[in-house]
Amino acid sequence: MAIATTVTVRPLYADTDQMGIVYHAKYLEWFEQGRNEQLRELGIPYTRVEADGFYLPVYEAYVRYRRPAKYDDVLIIKTILQEVPDVRFTIYYEVINAKDEVITKGHTVHSFVDRTGKPVRPPDWLVERIRDAMSEYQ
Amino acid sequence: MAIATTVTVRPLYADTDQMGIVYHAKYLEWFEQGRNEQLRELGIPYTRVEADGFYLPVYEAYVRYRRPAKYDDVLIIKTILQEVPDVRFTIYYEVINAKDEVITKGHTVHSFVDRTGKPVRPPDWLVERIRDAMSEYQ
Amino acid sequence: MAIATTVTVRPLYADTDQMGIVYHAKYLEWFEQGRNEQLRELGIPYTRVEADGFYLPVYEAYVRYRRPAKYDDVLIIKTILQEVPDVRFTIYYEVINAKDEVITKGHTVHSFVDRTGKPVRPPDWLVERIRDAMSEYQ
Amino acid sequence: MAIATTVTVRPLYADTDQMGIVYHAKYLEWFEQGRNEQLRELGIPYTRVEADGFYLPVYEAYVRYRRPAKYDDVLIIKTILQEVPDVRFTIYYEVINAKDEVITKGHTVHSFVDRTGKPVRPPDWLVERIRDAMSEYQ
Repeated sequence: MAIATTVTVRPLYADTDQMGIVYHAKYLEWFEQGRNEQLRELGIPYTRVEADGFYLPVYEAYVRYRRPAKYDDVLIIKTILQEVPDVRFTIYYEVINAKDEVITKGHTVHSFVDRTGKPVRPPDWLVERIRDAMSEYQ
Repeated sequence: MAIATTVTVRPLYADTDQMGIVYHAKYLEWFEQGRNEQLRELGIPYTRVEADGFYLPVYEAYVRYRRPAKYDDVLIIKTILQEVPDVRFTIYYEVINAKDEVITKGHTVHSFVDRTGKPVRPPDWLVERIRDAMSEYQ
Repeated sequence: MAIATTVTVRPLYADTDQMGIVYHAKYLEWFEQGRNEQLRELGIPYTRVEADGFYLPVYEAYVRYRRPAKYDDVLIIKTILQEVPDVRFTIYYEVINAKDEVITKGHTVHSFVDRTGKPVRPPDWLVERIRDAMSEYQ
Repeated sequence: MAIATTVTVRPLYADTDQMGIVYHAKYLEWFEQGRNEQLRELGIPYTRVEADGFYLPVYEAYVRYRRPAKYDDVLIIKTILQEVPDVRFTIYYEVINAKDEVITKGHTVHSFVDRTGKPVRPPDWLVERIRDAMSEYQ
């Protein structure tokens, strides 16, 4: 019932630090990329969410680093939505390397807010679209 | 008994996003800056830790965003060490705005590793230095 | 007659790459920090420029890297304004290390634009303030 | 005779600033991505260059911003190599939007250096591979 979306990334020099591994903050950008693509795949590009007057700021972010990623590694960012979003909801992420090892896991907690920053319920069309997608994934 | 260190930062345009607030991943860099300055204040600059063959990779990172930060805000990054580091240990952070509000909290979990990446006990001189500092702070 | 402003920065792990030096794009952020502080020193914080309805997008950026910067180096960012800004104007930068060597030089070209993005002449109060400062610096 | 390689990128929130456009330093990371992919396309992944003991630090970077890029735009990064690399050589870049407009142009100047940072001539196998590719492109 969960919806999983994958995107592939390859770390740049820009993303590494002098320990020769990807700097830990970079994963939060990949998580953003993951949820962008998940929304697009669901037919709800974030640009449309915004055009409708809704925003999805991050309320919490958690990352657990198990193994390092290196420059030019082929990494899969797997974005997992397990629940139909309400005012506040959680998205889960896994970063998987070429050996199919989950090297990093994390989640972000978001809220729908309107243009004034006030938390609001997500628009009906979005909730329905995700509910439909979740039943297709079953 | 905890050791608290503060540094002041002012967000750049580089740090903001199109929502007009600081992008959430930036806080992890400020946390790094905070723990760098805490180590320096303790007389243990991280460059010395590295020169001794020890590294402190991040194993977990957690951030809770309560209120947004804006371009050019005067922000205090408060870094709080509550325990004498063992192989694995936690550092806490608060981001405080000019109204003295804690707008963001977080923590990072680190491990001491040697040049090969193997987890090791921290060097004695470092443990003693922190133990001394903690008793001074009492 | 030029106005020079200095700020000190210390590179983080976040700023380094696996070559063990500061990643080249980071300098553009330090240049932004330099011109922010120059405007503040001139009594024209950029937040006021914006509040007045003016913006200063970057039209060109050039950086020449002579020597690398490393993690935790003490670096001075020197921002140099040589001309009273017109619609379009240039700001120069030098990055100076602890041995007083200019390790990097660069410049950015900016234009004043209004809220719609149209190039406009800078506000009179700003031009006068800079003209005054330039004569004080003589 | 020039070798042109294209990669597609879509700006994240992470890449935008509060003016609602892509922050100017981000383009240098896209240029890195462009030259990485060009080397891979030529059969010379940068990881192999490094494994051979050669590095390609950036000596100069120039960017000219004509039009802004926005969140989620579909952008093509075109990387253009016009000369067989010698000790020092230049790579050119164009960023092209969905309307086929060149919104940004730039170049970077690189040098081959060995593990000690000393400038050296590029390895023969690399020069030959590029010479071959340039004649194929004719």
